Amino acid sequence: MKVYLDNAATTQLDEDVIDYMHQLMLNNFGNPSSIHASGREAKVLVEQARNKIASILKVSPAEIFFTSGGTESINTIVSGVLLSSEISKVISSPIEHAAMLKSLEYNCKANDVELFMLDVDEAGQINLIELEEEISKTKGKVLVSLMHTNNEIGTLLPLNDVSDICRKFNALFLSDTVQSMGKLPVDLSDGILDFAIGSAHKFHGPKGVGFMYINGENKILPLLQGGSQERNMRAGTENTISIAAMAKAFEIAIASMQENTEKLIELKNYLIHRIESELPEITFNGHIHGLPNLINIGIPKTDNNEMLLMKFDINGIFVSGGSACSSGALMDSHVIKAIGKNNIIRPIRLAMSKFTTKNDIDSFLEVLKKI
Amino acid sequence: MKVYLDNAATTQLDEDVIDYMHQLMLNNFGNPSSIHASGREAKVLVEQARNKIASILKVSPAEIFFTSGGTESINTIVSGVLLSSEISKVISSPIEHAAMLKSLEYNCKANDVELFMLDVDEAGQINLIELEEEISKTKGKVLVSLMHTNNEIGTLLPLNDVSDICRKFNALFLSDTVQSMGKLPVDLSDGILDFAIGSAHKFHGPKGVGFMYINGENKILPLLQGGSQERNMRAGTENTISIAAMAKAFEIAIASMQENTEKLIELKNYLIHRIESELPEITFNGHIHGLPNLINIGIPKTDNNEMLLMKFDINGIFVSGGSACSSGALMDSHVIKAIGKNNIIRPIRLAMSKFTTKNDIDSFLEVLKKI
Repeated sequence: MKVYLDNAATTQLDEDVIDYMHQLMLNNFGNPSSIHASGREAKVLVEQARNKIASILKVSPAEIFFTSGGTESINTIVSGVLLSSEISKVISSPIEHAAMLKSLEYNCKANDVELFMLDVDEAGQINLIELEEEISKTKGKVLVSLMHTNNEIGTLLPLNDVSDICRKFNALFLSDTVQSMGKLPVDLSDGILDFAIGSAHKFHGPKGVGFMYINGENKILPLLQGGSQERNMRAGTENTISIAAMAKAFEIAIASMQENTEKLIELKNYLIHRIESELPEITFNGHIHGLPNLINIGIPKTDNNEMLLMKFDINGIFVSGGSACSSGALMDSHVIKAIGKNNIIRPIRLAMSKFTTKNDIDSFLEVLKKI
Repeated sequence: MKVYLDNAATTQLDEDVIDYMHQLMLNNFGNPSSIHASGREAKVLVEQARNKIASILKVSPAEIFFTSGGTESINTIVSGVLLSSEISKVISSPIEHAAMLKSLEYNCKANDVELFMLDVDEAGQINLIELEEEISKTKGKVLVSLMHTNNEIGTLLPLNDVSDICRKFNALFLSDTVQSMGKLPVDLSDGILDFAIGSAHKFHGPKGVGFMYINGENKILPLLQGGSQERNMRAGTENTISIAAMAKAFEIAIASMQENTEKLIELKNYLIHRIESELPEITFNGHIHGLPNLINIGIPKTDNNEMLLMKFDINGIFVSGGSACSSGALMDSHVIKAIGKNNIIRPIRLAMSKFTTKNDIDSFLEVLKKI
């Protein structure tokens, strides 16, 4: 038995995306920067992908830039903003992804900019009043970096409310949208964000490719120096086939979002119901009704359940205790720490996908009861 | 008719590589940082690829780091060395690739380090005596950055001689090996280089993936902050399938190198012979017996042949005037400028591959005579 419930770490490629990539691999290999027909064919792929993604997000294609993934997108935006703008304070929260936290720490230090961390409550929510107060008392420009949906506990940020506060004080607003792209409607048409990001392998596209949305009002310096690709925002030969595949995967995710969400919520409610009735000692972390595909449960900490994740693994159930980027080291989750539950529970993140079935949930519960 | 002679810009995927990627796309999608079986399967792919590449280059697997390609590799090494080491001067040459030139300029300026450019002769060769003198008179540590094989005119650097000079003065030696990897034997076993790079799409592998070789003696800071992937040298989910495909493409290139080289030299000699006998006004730029797959010819500049490349394109011949990274802007080649030929010739770079045939060369010559 193999039950994959770790779709926040990465997702299975969509079959249509595999077929599309296979066709492109056989027929399209030009360098989009070459001026001959072979290059132009490749360039068309890249620009069609840009148009598709821009159209879904309701922004201009000139505001979408392709990168190698979420981490590069975050690093480019954070380093670019701190080098290019007169930022005097960055405001963020302790539950951001490691890529954001480390990029903020590194670039704030390098540019001698204050990094202020908001408190989060037991559900991982920031306090909007604290945010507004912190911005309002800052002399100079502020960059606010708050993730749209938490990758471990599914907590949702009230994007519009935060945007309103940022707009009121002319602060820049970056939101890590890696987990929401393709899973929640993200409409950037009113310029509610200055910067957003996407990573294809989170929505059944290939690894090694992602995008940045940079609101046209903002001009920032690139991270990679070299060729003039991506209108000088990202040097390096374009990863044409993966870029095209990402746009296709994104289109598929958006087209089937409502249907998938309904199915995921049904599965989630079924899981919650069974846990509440059969395993009352188990608690839920973060927003159980946040990110539709994700639920994080807390198992009371004992000396005997330290190897919990390995026991799931041995039983063919693939779940994680937090972000894959740190789980390799078997470290405690910084998110669970931030919501104050680190000493009382062992967290298990279940991240479903459109491929998850009721049988998968039953198998998970069966193993959960046994170990 | 379609004749692709732009293999220095990018290459067609090898059929075996396509099949391999297709199989992996259907069967392997885990995140190598996940600790469960699905993650471990993906991790095995990445580590097998690392072992293969390290074994070919005769280095330790711990000295190979995966990136999104040549440009990211260059930027990581250059920024890392200048941030991490007490470098007081960087010595390079004007015929380096734009990714190297711009990365050196940017990072030298940011770190207040002198950037000294060696002269090159008409063939694009540096003067070893000038190099030695420039290093010897520098107080403090030097970074030498000189490409192994020029991507526009095929000029070869005497890698061992430069390495001996660097070793004598304890200078760090970075060589842009993007065009030589898979085309020339590159044996790094004696630590002749401190840093080298590879880009899969230059040797019939996929775009969007590459590697850095960082000699174990050197510890540098990473460019991307975030997860602890690649032993903290490159954050971001590993591009597993492309990494595995790159290693496969590299193995194929190495296994067939001798055979390919013999064929390419035969084609090249045929081309040279026909040009010399039928088109005596045409000259050759750089090392015609340098990089086996590449030849750069000079057509006497007239007002009538400004649109030369477009005419080739219309006739189904895909060649370029220089690096693809700048050709989009139809700018003059900085390499042809550096060898002093900019005012007298229009350069055409022919970059063949194992797929190039004698018919392709005949078609090229036919069009060349006509336009």
